[in-house]
Amino acid sequence: MKVVMIGSSGHSGLCVPDCIREDRTFVAIALGSRGESMEGMERRLREIGYTPTVYGDYREMLRKEKPDVAVIDNFYGEHGQVILDAFAAGCHVFAEKPAAANPEQLEQIQEAWRRAGTSFAGMFTYRYDGAFYKAWQLIRQGAIGKVRLLNAQKSYKFGTRPDFMSRRKTYGGTIPWVGIHGIDWILWMSGGHFTSVTAVQSAAEAPNGVCPETTALAQFQMEDGMMASLTVDYLNPAAAPFHGDDRIRVVGTKGVVEVRYNGVTLLNSQGVQHPQNLPEGDFFGDFLAQAVGKGKCRVSAEETFASTRAALLAQRAADSGETVCF
Amino acid sequence: MKVVMIGSSGHSGLCVPDCIREDRTFVAIALGSRGESMEGMERRLREIGYTPTVYGDYREMLRKEKPDVAVIDNFYGEHGQVILDAFAAGCHVFAEKPAAANPEQLEQIQEAWRRAGTSFAGMFTYRYDGAFYKAWQLIRQGAIGKVRLLNAQKSYKFGTRPDFMSRRKTYGGTIPWVGIHGIDWILWMSGGHFTSVTAVQSAAEAPNGVCPETTALAQFQMEDGMMASLTVDYLNPAAAPFHGDDRIRVVGTKGVVEVRYNGVTLLNSQGVQHPQNLPEGDFFGDFLAQAVGKGKCRVSAEETFASTRAALLAQRAADSGETVCF
Repeated sequence: MKVVMIGSSGHSGLCVPDCIREDRTFVAIALGSRGESMEGMERRLREIGYTPTVYGDYREMLRKEKPDVAVIDNFYGEHGQVILDAFAAGCHVFAEKPAAANPEQLEQIQEAWRRAGTSFAGMFTYRYDGAFYKAWQLIRQGAIGKVRLLNAQKSYKFGTRPDFMSRRKTYGGTIPWVGIHGIDWILWMSGGHFTSVTAVQSAAEAPNGVCPETTALAQFQMEDGMMASLTVDYLNPAAAPFHGDDRIRVVGTKGVVEVRYNGVTLLNSQGVQHPQNLPEGDFFGDFLAQAVGKGKCRVSAEETFASTRAALLAQRAADSGETVCF
Repeated sequence: MKVVMIGSSGHSGLCVPDCIREDRTFVAIALGSRGESMEGMERRLREIGYTPTVYGDYREMLRKEKPDVAVIDNFYGEHGQVILDAFAAGCHVFAEKPAAANPEQLEQIQEAWRRAGTSFAGMFTYRYDGAFYKAWQLIRQGAIGKVRLLNAQKSYKFGTRPDFMSRRKTYGGTIPWVGIHGIDWILWMSGGHFTSVTAVQSAAEAPNGVCPETTALAQFQMEDGMMASLTVDYLNPAAAPFHGDDRIRVVGTKGVVEVRYNGVTLLNSQGVQHPQNLPEGDFFGDFLAQAVGKGKCRVSAEETFASTRAALLAQRAADSGETVCF
């Protein structure tokens, strides 16, 4: 597959293997947002042995290279237009989240994807994490009965953040950048859908007091009285053992499953258990296989749209102070 | 102090010592709700050596006994009138939560308390728990900087529940019965106040599908962009190591403190620490000492009113589906 990369501001590194692989050729790269740098990505690809052409304009790259796959990873608030252009060029699209900056743009992307008829996945990396995948599998196998309540937590160290995160236009918001993972866990593990969301946020502790929001909460109603909460913060102390203190607690009628510190805890009629994580999966490899009709990626286009839309509506709820219905 | 007990449907047992104590004489008991039984409490008091008179009508008991202190613990949704009567009789009041069934009744109680000029405390028992008290002390000592975000969790085993819990009138609701503890932790540990609350609840898994609500969430905005979430459920599996899986996570600008499984975890620039719990305190003993001007109870009347009002407004938010302002 001929792969191009547009931007490298997020997690596109997950597409880059340790050595040349037969399933992918990185033919070209270009920045996707003004102010981005592709130097690190170019160096990394060349170290492995790829020889990508570097373009100044990603649209020109799409026209000239006619790639099979576009990996899109520019500034978080500016993914939408690049994704639209990539679908218009007939590409399979593997994109950093959030796919869009607002629900209206997301609908345009959904329409463009339908027209393109290609594969699409957002970088919901936790679906390929061994602990989260094991928790999902246990729930699917009935280990906790019917899911009734979910509590998701994202907590990151602030560390040193790039300048583009200090403006909403280029950043997009903490709920769609960080919180979206928790939102995706909730939809994935519950197998359900949202009916409404209420959210709050604060940028009081941001270096400029404006952006990024350093704390946020969202509360979701779901079908049949199922419900979910999300807490997000950038206040995980520098001395914490992990960059992210990511947790999910899924409460069912017959048990509770939790992920924390990269491990799974299951509590049901058999008492407290610590099942082994599943092996880590190969996200981009699965995506490429699916694109050539040889497999199935754990993140479908439909799920990408659902989680993204939920995150954007949660951001709208936080910005407006209103409960937003789905 | 001459103590009477009205009802014994909740945690009034915490007032009963293992042997006769000089600071309290249980002179009389009476039920406070139709359908309650005082037999167990009478037996327990007699086993220790107290000889309480048993009344059929608590109002008659208040008139005849002229007690110093009334311990109020009838059905959870019916505390309010009994508390009003006890203040009218000039008693110090030590009452099971929630003090009232709605915010209007709570205001009446506040007015009655002002007129009585006596001591008042709700049974916010966790303030006398060694782990929660240690967490509070660490926060007060500045171990996590400025508090920005709090996540509280209450999770109980359902077990066998008395019949009065199957009706809202006598039960009061899961948020004011169970969730109120988490609400009190949030106010206590943050030292802040609420500005609005949004809440959801579901009784889908209750035996009669109506009451008690088996899951609930509440999301609070606080001053200066501080915020808090609360999750409540009765789905802690029977095989769980503890009846309650009670947790609080308090995130500050310089660290995080958590209580879980009766232990404290502190994470700040010193790394992960597990400070020792403080000794368990004597809640009712402190209350009695305060009533005679010899000390200070960890739960003030003002705090009792604040936590109770917040729980009642959260219940109103859950019932109405509206965000409720404080």
